[in-house]
Amino acid sequence: MNLDRRKFLKTSGTALLPAMIPVSSVLATGTRQHLSNAPTGPTVKFFGAGESYEPQEYLAELQKYQAAKGIERDRYGTGGVIEALEKRFTEITGKEKAVFMPSGTMANQLAIAVLSGEETKVIVQETSHVFRDESDAAQTVFGKRLVPLAKDATYFTAQQLQEGIESLKQGEVFKTSVGAVSIENPVRRADERVVPIEEIKKISAYCRSNNIGLHLDGARLFIASGWTGVSVKEYASYFDTVYISLYKYFGAAAGAILCGPREVMDKMTHLVKVHGGSMYGNWLNAAMALHRMEGFETRLQQAIQASKSIFATLNKLPGVKVSPLDGGTNIYTLELDKKIDGNRLQASLREAKILMPRPDGNNHTMLTVNETLLYQPVDYIVNAFKKGL
Amino acid sequence: MNLDRRKFLKTSGTALLPAMIPVSSVLATGTRQHLSNAPTGPTVKFFGAGESYEPQEYLAELQKYQAAKGIERDRYGTGGVIEALEKRFTEITGKEKAVFMPSGTMANQLAIAVLSGEETKVIVQETSHVFRDESDAAQTVFGKRLVPLAKDATYFTAQQLQEGIESLKQGEVFKTSVGAVSIENPVRRADERVVPIEEIKKISAYCRSNNIGLHLDGARLFIASGWTGVSVKEYASYFDTVYISLYKYFGAAAGAILCGPREVMDKMTHLVKVHGGSMYGNWLNAAMALHRMEGFETRLQQAIQASKSIFATLNKLPGVKVSPLDGGTNIYTLELDKKIDGNRLQASLREAKILMPRPDGNNHTMLTVNETLLYQPVDYIVNAFKKGL
Amino acid sequence: MNLDRRKFLKTSGTALLPAMIPVSSVLATGTRQHLSNAPTGPTVKFFGAGESYEPQEYLAELQKYQAAKGIERDRYGTGGVIEALEKRFTEITGKEKAVFMPSGTMANQLAIAVLSGEETKVIVQETSHVFRDESDAAQTVFGKRLVPLAKDATYFTAQQLQEGIESLKQGEVFKTSVGAVSIENPVRRADERVVPIEEIKKISAYCRSNNIGLHLDGARLFIASGWTGVSVKEYASYFDTVYISLYKYFGAAAGAILCGPREVMDKMTHLVKVHGGSMYGNWLNAAMALHRMEGFETRLQQAIQASKSIFATLNKLPGVKVSPLDGGTNIYTLELDKKIDGNRLQASLREAKILMPRPDGNNHTMLTVNETLLYQPVDYIVNAFKKGL
Amino acid sequence: MNLDRRKFLKTSGTALLPAMIPVSSVLATGTRQHLSNAPTGPTVKFFGAGESYEPQEYLAELQKYQAAKGIERDRYGTGGVIEALEKRFTEITGKEKAVFMPSGTMANQLAIAVLSGEETKVIVQETSHVFRDESDAAQTVFGKRLVPLAKDATYFTAQQLQEGIESLKQGEVFKTSVGAVSIENPVRRADERVVPIEEIKKISAYCRSNNIGLHLDGARLFIASGWTGVSVKEYASYFDTVYISLYKYFGAAAGAILCGPREVMDKMTHLVKVHGGSMYGNWLNAAMALHRMEGFETRLQQAIQASKSIFATLNKLPGVKVSPLDGGTNIYTLELDKKIDGNRLQASLREAKILMPRPDGNNHTMLTVNETLLYQPVDYIVNAFKKGL
Repeated sequence: MNLDRRKFLKTSGTALLPAMIPVSSVLATGTRQHLSNAPTGPTVKFFGAGESYEPQEYLAELQKYQAAKGIERDRYGTGGVIEALEKRFTEITGKEKAVFMPSGTMANQLAIAVLSGEETKVIVQETSHVFRDESDAAQTVFGKRLVPLAKDATYFTAQQLQEGIESLKQGEVFKTSVGAVSIENPVRRADERVVPIEEIKKISAYCRSNNIGLHLDGARLFIASGWTGVSVKEYASYFDTVYISLYKYFGAAAGAILCGPREVMDKMTHLVKVHGGSMYGNWLNAAMALHRMEGFETRLQQAIQASKSIFATLNKLPGVKVSPLDGGTNIYTLELDKKIDGNRLQASLREAKILMPRPDGNNHTMLTVNETLLYQPVDYIVNAFKKGL
Repeated sequence: MNLDRRKFLKTSGTALLPAMIPVSSVLATGTRQHLSNAPTGPTVKFFGAGESYEPQEYLAELQKYQAAKGIERDRYGTGGVIEALEKRFTEITGKEKAVFMPSGTMANQLAIAVLSGEETKVIVQETSHVFRDESDAAQTVFGKRLVPLAKDATYFTAQQLQEGIESLKQGEVFKTSVGAVSIENPVRRADERVVPIEEIKKISAYCRSNNIGLHLDGARLFIASGWTGVSVKEYASYFDTVYISLYKYFGAAAGAILCGPREVMDKMTHLVKVHGGSMYGNWLNAAMALHRMEGFETRLQQAIQASKSIFATLNKLPGVKVSPLDGGTNIYTLELDKKIDGNRLQASLREAKILMPRPDGNNHTMLTVNETLLYQPVDYIVNAFKKGL
Repeated sequence: MNLDRRKFLKTSGTALLPAMIPVSSVLATGTRQHLSNAPTGPTVKFFGAGESYEPQEYLAELQKYQAAKGIERDRYGTGGVIEALEKRFTEITGKEKAVFMPSGTMANQLAIAVLSGEETKVIVQETSHVFRDESDAAQTVFGKRLVPLAKDATYFTAQQLQEGIESLKQGEVFKTSVGAVSIENPVRRADERVVPIEEIKKISAYCRSNNIGLHLDGARLFIASGWTGVSVKEYASYFDTVYISLYKYFGAAAGAILCGPREVMDKMTHLVKVHGGSMYGNWLNAAMALHRMEGFETRLQQAIQASKSIFATLNKLPGVKVSPLDGGTNIYTLELDKKIDGNRLQASLREAKILMPRPDGNNHTMLTVNETLLYQPVDYIVNAFKKGL
Repeated sequence: MNLDRRKFLKTSGTALLPAMIPVSSVLATGTRQHLSNAPTGPTVKFFGAGESYEPQEYLAELQKYQAAKGIERDRYGTGGVIEALEKRFTEITGKEKAVFMPSGTMANQLAIAVLSGEETKVIVQETSHVFRDESDAAQTVFGKRLVPLAKDATYFTAQQLQEGIESLKQGEVFKTSVGAVSIENPVRRADERVVPIEEIKKISAYCRSNNIGLHLDGARLFIASGWTGVSVKEYASYFDTVYISLYKYFGAAAGAILCGPREVMDKMTHLVKVHGGSMYGNWLNAAMALHRMEGFETRLQQAIQASKSIFATLNKLPGVKVSPLDGGTNIYTLELDKKIDGNRLQASLREAKILMPRPDGNNHTMLTVNETLLYQPVDYIVNAFKKGL
């Protein structure tokens, strides 16, 4: 931990820092000069939605939390930190009830199964996790037909949704209706691009006036919120149910939270049980999420600010271009001039404990902004780039 | 830790003890005299199949394991300590392949679903977990008809099984066959009584000659093995698949292992995924199980030896009778004469950090033998009883 | 057709007879004396719930109906005689809506699936068609757990039902509720014995006050009604849904009717379709049922009256004992003294075109009363027995 | 029946005609001159795949068949004319086993369910009956994901199929495979256009070499065969299973036949039963199909020859254009010049007992060729058109 970093953090007025610094960094001492040779502190990673702890760090973080707050075990998802976590998410999302689930797949599937009820059709983005990354669970386990819209795109508009639903009605003789719509936001397969809030509002209005359930696969919803400025609670307000991951950026080893109206959520405990997801204890995941949620949004804004400074400086360097994605959030493109040796840059940064993905054949790559940017001061990171170029 | 205990352990030749002593006991110092007044060390519990750590102890144990062996994370059940655990269980059970599952319910359900294949009927004990404690998952999620035999009993004999299957054939016109038989052993709802090994052998022979899959719900199989002397591997050999819990006595916060032939187990990863059980990381559970499995069987035998000494002494006391259950394992009945104040005994033991269940109206209760008996020397425990009587 | 028969029918005041006489009998001429030697007319059958036409007779009957009333085709279960039949059954049962189904299995299964909704358990008689003769469809296709009560018995009482439900609640930790109760009445596997109307009333009251759906498998409900005097409409009034077969005694080649409240029945067309039961035309079945339902109850009473006369006379013969079953309907036991050659009796009756089942080793058999008894006069039948004894 | 018709038929050398002439025509007498004023005989219909009898004709036809061949009843799909029909279809298709099914939906669904086995994905034409007209049964009842190819088109090529399957593999991380491909041929929603036999051969080769089941929805396969000259048996040889309807042109009121290898078909009786499709008797449908199958292919070729003569003559008339569809079979476009009053033509034809669909706003309509064209001589039909123009 060096002075510049301390200064940066002091001006940010955050007292939450300790919570996000892995244990290894606590032991770090040394100066800036020292760092540029043999850097201490945890690794800055220009990929991933957030910190994902190695076992040693994970245990150390949990022990800090245990020491500070005390961890109470759950038993089969009842009581202790699971209950506390669920309560916390009802506050964050404004929903009546939250239930811990072992996986996002289970959260998504149970949500759309319950929301669609006796209807068979569920509209999803063609690029969505529900459609592409849940192994056809909807069709094979839950007896739902997923109808994909917006092939290869981030989202469908409200009008496309309406046309899609009308087209189904026209195209079939024996009527079966759309029971639910599921929207992933941001969309992982679209490099974390977001669905515009105005479309969400229109889709929500359409679904509500047509008695169609609306689910939000918000695995990385805090990322969307961080970049769009739309609060998690506002996002959630347009949907019946919302799933948020506990391991994308909250550091838990696993787990998901599903929030929604009591009437829907009251069915979940039984459904989780019969699908084999009722586990004896998940306090190791819940405690970490509770621990890391503290101050997360503040830290994320700090990281965004840091990234702005870093990218602004990088863009002034010859042959370097960092650009946000159209409709994007935490992922930026890094385009390097062909004269620059991208692989050498990557290797040089690695020595400075800064990881970035390997540039492709066009000397392009993606830089993802996350909390780990806060592990080093902005100018340390900028200098490391400069050195590597 | 006192001298007598050390001596006992030394004669047992175990070097594994530290693994089973929770962190709090490591800090314990003091003498025997001290102990009888304000005992140090972890609590002896005459209930439960094994130690179930509180968060502080859990984290400390895992850190010990991390320090000693290093923990490598899994990713969605692949690699790291999950892989190591699965490998370990193939060795223990002699089966070709083992797969981690989030819950015993998922392990049992997927096993019987795959084993029974296209057949609809699965025979189970009426007292079994599959029949009584899995929320009708077999029927509602997996489309199986569970046919219970041996109502209110520990087990059905091979002959009862054969008669039951014949009776189904006689009783129905449209033939649907029995695709699998599931046997729980030991049976929790029968106070951990076991199915006799001779019946298991006959049932196994019958099933194999009739092409019926045979699953073992061995959640607490190490308990059965500990008391019957039949090895886990031998038990497993009579079955196609075997499920063993990771949290009953191996200390994990959650998790289960299902072992079986490669042909069956190769279907599991997909099935776990579509049922929502594919979690990002379960290394926190797998590492603890690996940690605590080391030396478990030796420690269990030590605890059994200790219990024999304790119960033999107690049975010499007036008004005290400790007896094994007929066909039982780790659970014993404690019958107190009516002149004895059972509640006072319980309270007195509690002061000595020895917990036992409250006697009922007949002044009877159950004493369960488990590893925690090793937390104190035999004579400490016996003396605590004497004092309380 | 002889004079005595005509007289008998005239005194019964029925004009409906032609509807039940198969075509072959229309051509029959001759006298009583003639008959006893080489009887004309259709065969009297002391088995079966009613007439089941051979193709030639079936076609002739339908042509009569076509000539008299005109048959209008249905198209995929809509319009024509299907609509007329459904309307007729709403009148008969007092239910809001009736839907034709290809089979009783489909009718029973869809009824209990819809009535039980999200609940998993359905209580049935252990002897019932739903439990024993539908190939585990409830568990494998509809995801329901059937809980059998009253093993080997005709029915469970309201108290047994209540105790059974309470026992399920006590015996399980994870609660799953009973969503529906299905009662078969009369019970084919109990030789058409009936469930006492008083028990039905109590069960109905219990189910209604506990929000449990109640289905009546009344495949042969008109038989129950014919012997108990409780009207089909009254029986139906105690249940939410009622299934009645079209081929047990209404002569159709196949088909079933399910009746119930509009809210439940409105779901059936879709469910029949997705399960593959939506057929292009079923007017050949519906027309026959409409045809044969006309006057059925009157003819059944006539057959019952005829059977009383026949059995009263038979019981006066030495070594012959005809008795009703305890709680029975159309099935009676025939006990012959060992001195009587039962097989010769059967053969002799066959020559007189009267069929009865072969006596067993104890010289006992069953005689079933149905409309075919009206094919010959009482004294013709009695004389045929006398001759054969 | 007039002389010209007789002559036409004589030259065709058919002795099978009586089987296809409805009863009403049997009574028809009169001469050609008579006919043009007040035509006798059944109605010629330029729509529909074949004759679909009204009840009176249906019964008369069946009675003819009963008189000629004798109809033996089936019992729950066993024996009698059902068995005979199934045997007949094994001969026609060259498959090992045929099973009667109540509906094409059940035949299609059970075939793809069994063929795909444990795999989740089934490839279908986007325009197919399975995808658009079976109420999502595949997803909701049979747990399959239908993947539609060739949107709005008649068929997908073998290359498109291969690309589609490769694209699925690329687009998903958790692998789930394609278990079956279903091809409808001809395609009703594509106006009975056919899949080219060369594509079928390639698709068949691809599926066999990739262990993918291949099902043919050949509801109207005899139509495809009639126009392409590819025999039903050859078509069937490229597929594992083939479904053929009994009511599109074989006159049955309902029913379907599924044919395939014994290993697959042996599972069907149970599956039909649990889905509620096991009906008491279907002899009324089977007998009609058996009756009408006799000589069907000959009659169809006669109708095709007749249509060629009729359309050739019509095309010489001013303002009239009849054209086959590209890749089509029995459906032709009729384009009328705007000067022609299409509605008057339709009305005039109706007086001559010739029905055709009403022309649309562009004065276009479709003419379907089927057996009913044989009800009148070619020149009678041509003259009726001339008169109406």
